[in-house]
Amino acid sequence: MSKKISVTDTILRDAHQSLLATRMRLEDMLPICPKLDAVGFWSLEVWGGATFDACVRFLKEDPWQRLHQLKAALPNTRLQMLLRGQNLLGYRHYSDDVVRAFVERSAAGGIEVFRIFDAMNDVRNLKTSIEAVKASGQHAQGTICYTTSPLHSIETFVEQAKQMADMGIDSIAIKDMAGLLTPYPTGELVAALKAALPLDVVIHSHDTAGIASLCQLKAIENGADRIDTAISSMAWGTSHPGTESMVAALAGSPFDTGLNLQLLQEIGLYFYAVRKKYHQFESEFTGVDTRVQVNQVPGGMISNLANQLKEQGALNRMDEVLAEIPKVRADLGYPPLVTPTSQIVGSQAFFNVLAGERYKTITNEVKLYLQGRYGKALGEVNPELRRKAIGNEEVIDVRPADLLPPELDRLRGEIGALAKSEEDVLTYAMFPDIGRKFLEERQAGTLTAETLLPIPDGNQAASTTA
Amino acid sequence: MSKKISVTDTILRDAHQSLLATRMRLEDMLPICPKLDAVGFWSLEVWGGATFDACVRFLKEDPWQRLHQLKAALPNTRLQMLLRGQNLLGYRHYSDDVVRAFVERSAAGGIEVFRIFDAMNDVRNLKTSIEAVKASGQHAQGTICYTTSPLHSIETFVEQAKQMADMGIDSIAIKDMAGLLTPYPTGELVAALKAALPLDVVIHSHDTAGIASLCQLKAIENGADRIDTAISSMAWGTSHPGTESMVAALAGSPFDTGLNLQLLQEIGLYFYAVRKKYHQFESEFTGVDTRVQVNQVPGGMISNLANQLKEQGALNRMDEVLAEIPKVRADLGYPPLVTPTSQIVGSQAFFNVLAGERYKTITNEVKLYLQGRYGKALGEVNPELRRKAIGNEEVIDVRPADLLPPELDRLRGEIGALAKSEEDVLTYAMFPDIGRKFLEERQAGTLTAETLLPIPDGNQAASTTA
Ligand SMILES: [Co+2]
Ligand SMILES: [Co+2]
Repeated sequence: MSKKISVTDTILRDAHQSLLATRMRLEDMLPICPKLDAVGFWSLEVWGGATFDACVRFLKEDPWQRLHQLKAALPNTRLQMLLRGQNLLGYRHYSDDVVRAFVERSAAGGIEVFRIFDAMNDVRNLKTSIEAVKASGQHAQGTICYTTSPLHSIETFVEQAKQMADMGIDSIAIKDMAGLLTPYPTGELVAALKAALPLDVVIHSHDTAGIASLCQLKAIENGADRIDTAISSMAWGTSHPGTESMVAALAGSPFDTGLNLQLLQEIGLYFYAVRKKYHQFESEFTGVDTRVQVNQVPGGMISNLANQLKEQGALNRMDEVLAEIPKVRADLGYPPLVTPTSQIVGSQAFFNVLAGERYKTITNEVKLYLQGRYGKALGEVNPELRRKAIGNEEVIDVRPADLLPPELDRLRGEIGALAKSEEDVLTYAMFPDIGRKFLEERQAGTLTAETLLPIPDGNQAASTTA
Repeated sequence: MSKKISVTDTILRDAHQSLLATRMRLEDMLPICPKLDAVGFWSLEVWGGATFDACVRFLKEDPWQRLHQLKAALPNTRLQMLLRGQNLLGYRHYSDDVVRAFVERSAAGGIEVFRIFDAMNDVRNLKTSIEAVKASGQHAQGTICYTTSPLHSIETFVEQAKQMADMGIDSIAIKDMAGLLTPYPTGELVAALKAALPLDVVIHSHDTAGIASLCQLKAIENGADRIDTAISSMAWGTSHPGTESMVAALAGSPFDTGLNLQLLQEIGLYFYAVRKKYHQFESEFTGVDTRVQVNQVPGGMISNLANQLKEQGALNRMDEVLAEIPKVRADLGYPPLVTPTSQIVGSQAFFNVLAGERYKTITNEVKLYLQGRYGKALGEVNPELRRKAIGNEEVIDVRPADLLPPELDRLRGEIGALAKSEEDVLTYAMFPDIGRKFLEERQAGTLTAETLLPIPDGNQAASTTA
């Protein structure tokens, strides 16, 4: 059997989101776009995730302008984005009319592939976005957020994939955001998905535990069609397997990608230099760390908790919090741990330990969760906890957005003349405070990106052997 | 099929040789030995390679004392060393009596597993060491230095392994020092070796191109018995796949190592802190770099050449030198590129480019090589080059050491009373200048290790989440 494996490179989105706090600027992307566009990637992930937030909050770049300029600079490659289903690129559930408008403007701006996920794996939260992507004529990729629990199994993931297929998705992504997957279970999951559905399967595996490339290899051998990689100078650790490495590993094999290694190496040297510009955003929590395989807590979550505990002078209680997290997660019906559920579970575990009594303090987010406002996880929530947290308050079991009236007109009215386009209204919709601030500063001509610290001596850009 | 894969950890030898210029000191090894000894590694590589040189030259540690103290601290784990065949741990061919004495003292000091290689893959250069290891009752591991050329093939490597088997080796190591192997050819090579010989096969693959863990996985699936890894805080890049990652990747699979991941993580945190002490030896040439897959020049060789070229103000001629290296290698009959052949080929390529005429200058080492003084590579040397270089001088075709008279007595006489033991004589034998200096300073009580620079602020040891 011989089969060409296609590649999605994440260098312009997930790679710098994972390693450099999403800080790469458009000015560092555009010069290399001609080479990126010549590689022959199946797609380039360039937008969505935290990039929209980082643009508006820190870089003072219009995220829509970024999209339009990337589209112009990459005429031959599919542009791909990561979309949080009904949460779009914000942190709450939006009404369906906002979701439709957002997808429509994204597609009009150049996005051809929408990878859509829900933090609960509640497919109802994907429904409107999938419909909107299909209405725009683009590619809707349904996402399985990989997690483990006594309830999750290959069967439950295949069932989720079938439900997404019924909604009309064009392909399936296995998103292993924490680096929990190991090679042989990955192969089994991919084989089961390929046996169940006539759709391409893509493997998106973060290398947090140093295992992602192995998972990709077994995925490929079991029928996966595409892998997500990152140009090597921003690869590995909490990012993805290096593009050059995976291309070299498969070259000459039945799974050859056909991509030009020398061209990729030139791109790698370019980003090697770019990365140094952002040294202030490097973190010691982005290297390979297999602890996620023992405690199942993703690296990013551990660093957040460490900061919270340090503020309370309670860093010595980290082990207790790490032990509490799986218990809270069980009480909530085993949601995957990914934004926003990772924060919800982590904060509650933190309070459970520091208060000296479980659920003495219950966060607002956990209360909303117990009301069904994020949708439904695979398991049932602990009924006692629910009673204690919300008493007789209403619990919804419909899709959360079913209860949300249309809100686009209201948003348009609120932001008024500051918005010069529908895109501006959507920017405001995503981030009412910082979005408004961005539009005000733009009007006043005072947009200023945060300052980049100078590159320290002895850490000069580019290799001496380039 | 289910098969327990055993593990050799390289943290005390190859890991810090690859990443920290071989500078880790015994004082940073001993505190963690109880935990290392409890893991259940098949062996720990702790000695040989460049450690002996670094001890005597920079650390002013008696390498034999290091061995004896490690043996005492690791009573339950096999100690392993890397031996350069007839070169032992020095840079020339030694007479057989020196080889026998060195192996005998190493075995008496605690080495149970001797990995023996020759830079030419000339098995005649392994003969005396293999005999000596067997005479000492220890484990002799024969090594294939992996390389590629129009002449090298699975058949030639299997033939080499058979010749080593005839000499009595107990197992076979595939040593991919440059990171040239890719997963599927690795699997084929391992399968062929296992089919040809009833010996354990170990895979030693440097992660220079970011592919080593993939090679190990395919090696395992094709019958390899053991892998070389490095505790994750000194793993990856020019070092080896991370121990914790490989253990986690195989856990629960038919190839489970059975090692305790939590214990390994504790060891990982220890070395995470240790690494910071040696920050002055970190280099930008130790990260993943797939260029070796295109030009076949190992990373360490590129950095050496870059330094040589920089001194001549000719860094811009690097590409020409990289293109010249394969030609010189062909003229020399395609030796593997590993110490000392990498330096021999690299320097000659450097002169060929800078002199503006190929072989206008011919190095002394190339002359010796053409006389047969390093043994024989797989291919024939270019006869015209040989005539030009050495005219009518004698060419030997016997094993080089056959022409060396016994020299141990002479060495013993030369170093005289400075040597307090047979081990001291061997230290002097390895390094006549720095070995003598070491013994003199020891006698004078003036041994002083090179200075370690203080750890910079903001780069403090240990993770906050330990
Ligand atoms: Co991701
Ligand atoms: Co090595």
